[in-house]
This record gives sequence, structure tokens and C-alpha cells, in this order.
Amino acid sequence: MDKELFKTRLDKDVEDVEKILKELLPKAEGPAATVMEAMDYSVMAGGKRLRPVMILESFRLFSHECDDKIDHKLGCFMAAMEYIHTYSLVHDDLPAMDNDEYRRGRLTTWKMYGDGMGVLAGDALLNYAFEMMMKAAEESVSCHAECATRILKASAILSKKAGIYGMIGGQCADIEAEEKEDVTIGDLMFIHEHKTACLIEAALMVGAVLAGADDEQVKLLERVGSNVGVAFQIRDDLLDVIGNTEKLGKKTGSDAANGKATYVTINGIEPSKEKVLSLSKEAEELLSSLPGDKGFMLALIDSLIGRTY
Amino acid sequence: MDKELFKTRLDKDVEDVEKILKELLPKAEGPAATVMEAMDYSVMAGGKRLRPVMILESFRLFSHECDDKIDHKLGCFMAAMEYIHTYSLVHDDLPAMDNDEYRRGRLTTWKMYGDGMGVLAGDALLNYAFEMMMKAAEESVSCHAECATRILKASAILSKKAGIYGMIGGQCADIEAEEKEDVTIGDLMFIHEHKTACLIEAALMVGAVLAGADDEQVKLLERVGSNVGVAFQIRDDLLDVIGNTEKLGKKTGSDAANGKATYVTINGIEPSKEKVLSLSKEAEELLSSLPGDKGFMLALIDSLIGRTY
Repeated sequence: MDKELFKTRLDKDVEDVEKILKELLPKAEGPAATVMEAMDYSVMAGGKRLRPVMILESFRLFSHECDDKIDHKLGCFMAAMEYIHTYSLVHDDLPAMDNDEYRRGRLTTWKMYGDGMGVLAGDALLNYAFEMMMKAAEESVSCHAECATRILKASAILSKKAGIYGMIGGQCADIEAEEKEDVTIGDLMFIHEHKTACLIEAALMVGAVLAGADDEQVKLLERVGSNVGVAFQIRDDLLDVIGNTEKLGKKTGSDAANGKATYVTINGIEPSKEKVLSLSKEAEELLSSLPGDKGFMLALIDSLIGRTY
Repeated sequence: MDKELFKTRLDKDVEDVEKILKELLPKAEGPAATVMEAMDYSVMAGGKRLRPVMILESFRLFSHECDDKIDHKLGCFMAAMEYIHTYSLVHDDLPAMDNDEYRRGRLTTWKMYGDGMGVLAGDALLNYAFEMMMKAAEESVSCHAECATRILKASAILSKKAGIYGMIGGQCADIEAEEKEDVTIGDLMFIHEHKTACLIEAALMVGAVLAGADDEQVKLLERVGSNVGVAFQIRDDLLDVIGNTEKLGKKTGSDAANGKATYVTINGIEPSKEKVLSLSKEAEELLSSLPGDKGFMLALIDSLIGRTY
């Protein structure tokens, strides 16, 4: 896909996502206004909105229903996904976890609202994500049975990929790795595959399921998501070593300085580059076997894990 | 209902709940075993199991289907409810919130596993609760359409009552009240109605919805739950002032010593007793208008908010 065309469509997608996120967030009022404000503060802090865009574009691989206007039920899932991603960041930043005071150039949620409210705002976002999915599910009761089945399936996928067999499992392994002397490549791969890749997998799967893709296609997208997620993480670690600060928008060399084991510090730069390349190539090949116009999705993957270092 | 009979049936219910909770918890294994262990530690710490028992017994008001053997889908909701209740306690105990080191005579989850793992275990329980509901929902796809609709409705109720318009909203107001000079009765009622009552309401509603109760009956049970929840909280505050340590299993007079405003410290002992009595009477009257054998449910409510102080 042409670079300009890709950029224009991505910008439009992100704009649509921002609108949906804002619309579906609760209006802060009443005695619980503070937690609602903290949710809004956390979600509207910006970000690439990669996961909801992936839901939308994965949907479009299989259906033209949302080419012009995004269906409300699909929007609920796009928002739920970003709320889950956001809650994980809010809790990661807590003093009990990474103790980060800044994210995207602003105070983190706990630093802004206190750490009790930081815990609560994360809980609220996770719970609210499920409220959104249930809202979509209740709406589906009035449409055809196939529609309700798809929504249940998508909810089951997202809840599993966000939990102990998915993202939370990866976070647990990550906490454990911090205290370990000898972190292995196996440990690291488990962390990347779960902490980072599982929500990417879920995004691609949820969009496809809602659009009516069959089980085999959904499984294939799960593998694409896994490759993209892991490659994305290794590329991030690579950029920490060889990237320049300007491009990345954050300091480089911080992993080595912190004594943090990464795929790159264990395997070296060249093998890491090769790994990203092979994961990215495989993802593209898998995608190519799907029906529909894959131009945008291929360009999106390239922008995430292509050879830009 | 006869006291002995009540006790026997309650013991049996609690035993069934314990079995279900244990069965549905993940087996701790793999690189994320620690968070699974922490979930198990938190859930299996004991407790009255009041909320899942209420789901079961509310179901039995409207259906005899689970009189002998508890249906797996109903069990998923009973477990989900207790996991949500447990996660709220795990996060409440965190240093960022109440900073409690002991609960039910054991170290709290964060004290046992570290506070990062405490945050994560709570997140994991909340997420896992929804996984359980989705599991029930997916199973329902193969049964009749009415069954799937009930499960969606029950999931929507539980997710809403646990969130910012329910329990989390109450927790937010509670955190805010701690920093306020002049906590009003209005503030306190909001906190009790949300932090305590909402999950009780949800328990009664979920059981009824799953058994096929109509909307009016479910609304009535919501009011019963609200009364029971608020009365339960005021009674707890009363016992803090006038109860004896032995009966309550914890020190009394702690609210006054901590300068904590409660319904009792603001309104006085006698008006508080009257409030509990009127709430309890109204709950019983409301219940009486429902079909079925209300004996056990009335005895359960009496055991919770009857005149035992």
C-alpha cells in the first residue's frame, strides 16, 4: 500500500478510535466522580491506539460492514480493548510495581490522583471494559443469533488473553524475572508472548470473529499477532541499544544501564535483527493466505516491525 | 424456618460453594504459577461465602433445577461473584489503600506475596471472574436461546454492580470521605449502598435472573439486597460500639478510636438500631410478596441483620 494512503487511513482510524473512547467513557459526576476523572485522564493521555485500530482493520479484512461507519457493537470492543491496555499501564506504573511518575510526558495516574485512586482507576477500567462487552452482548440479543454467538466468542477471547493465561500471566513472569539471577531466553519469550503479544493476538482475533471469520482464519490471525507482538518487543529492545533518542522519544541504553536482561542483551544485536526479520516475514506470509485486501494490514505490520532501525 | 434446619442447609450450601470455588480456580503451574497461587491463597482464606450462597438460594426461590445438584453455569456465577468480592478485599488491603497486614488471622495477600503481586492477584481475580461468566455464556450457546439471554443479563448485572456505578463507585466515595472534615449521612449512605450493598443486590438478582424470574421480581430483589446491604453495614458499625469482642471476633470501639464517621457516630445508637430494624422489616415484607418457599432466605436475612446485638 502507498505510504501516503496508509498514513491517511491510519490517521482516520485513530481519529475514529479517539472519538469512540471518549464517547464511551463515563461522564464524571456524583460522589464517585474522582475515579471517573482518573479513568478519563488515563485513557485520554494519548498513545498509538494500535490495538483498537487492529480490531477495526481485522474486521475489515472479512467484512465491508464498517467501511464507512463503525458499528456500535464493534466500537464497544475497540474501547474495551484500549481500556484493558490502559488499566495494565496504570497498574504497571504504581509504586507497588514499576513506580513510574511520568508517562507520555504527563504525570502517571497514581501520581496525579494518589496511589489508592491509582489502584481503583485501574480496577475501574478493567471492569468497565467488561461492561462495554456486556453492553454489546445485550444489544446483540435483539439481532440474529449468529451475531450474539460472535459477540460471546469475542468476549471469551479477550477475557482469556487479558488474564492469567495471557497478559497477566506475562506480567507475573516479568515480576519473577526481575528477582532472578539467570533469566533465560525461554523466560523472556514467555514474557513477550504473554505480556505483549496476547493483546495483539486478541485484537486481530476479536475483529475477525466479529466479522464472521471461520475458526481456521482466527487461529491464523492468532499466530500473526503472536509474531507481531514478540517482534515488536524485540525491536523495542533493539532500539534501546542502537536506536537514537530522537526517533524513539525516550532515552536509549536504559536496559543495559539497569542491568535488565533482554533478547538483545542475551543474544546480541545481529541475531536479534534476524529474529525480528524472520518473525515479520512469517507474519506477512501467514496474512497473505487470508482473503480480502490485506494492503493496509501489511503496511501496519511493516510500520510496527519493519526494518526501520 | 427452624434454626437447626437453617443451619444444616447453610452449612451444606457453604460446603458446596467451597468445592466450586476450589474446582474452578486455576491449577498453579508454569511461569505464572505465583499469581495463581496468590489467587488461591486469597480465595481459599475462608469467609462466610454469603454472596455465592445468596445466588444459589435466590435461584432456588424460582427454580427447583438446582435443588439436588448445582448446575455448572450457575456455579460459574457463584464463583465469579466470590472472586470479585475477594479481589476487592485484596486490593483494599494494599499499602496504597488500607495497608492491612492481616485478614482472617492470616497474612494478607500483598504481605504474603509482595505488593506488586498483590495488585496483580486482584487484577487476576477480577479478570478471571469474567472468564468464568464467559465460560458459562459459551456453554449456553448450545442450550436454548432463553438460557443464553439469561446468562448475558446476569453478566451485565454483575459487571455493572461491581463497577463505577456500583462497588468501585462506593470505594471511590469511601477514599474521598477519609479526607473530608464533615462526612454527611448522605455521603455514608452512598458508600454503604454502593461499596457494601451493590454486590448483595447483584447476588440476589443474578440468581433470580438465571432461574428465569421476571423483571419486576428482579427489581424487587434489588431493593431487598439494598436494604440488607445497608442494614448489614450499620449493624456492623453498631457492633463496633456496643457488641462484645468475643461475638464479633474483632476489637470493638475501633471506629471511634480512629475518628471514623459512621452512621452510629453521627446518628447515635438508638436511631441506628431503629434504622436496622426498619430496613430489615421492609426487606422481609418485600421478600414475602415473591412466590416459592422463602423460609431459608428469610432466616438468612435474619441471621445477617436480625436483632442479635
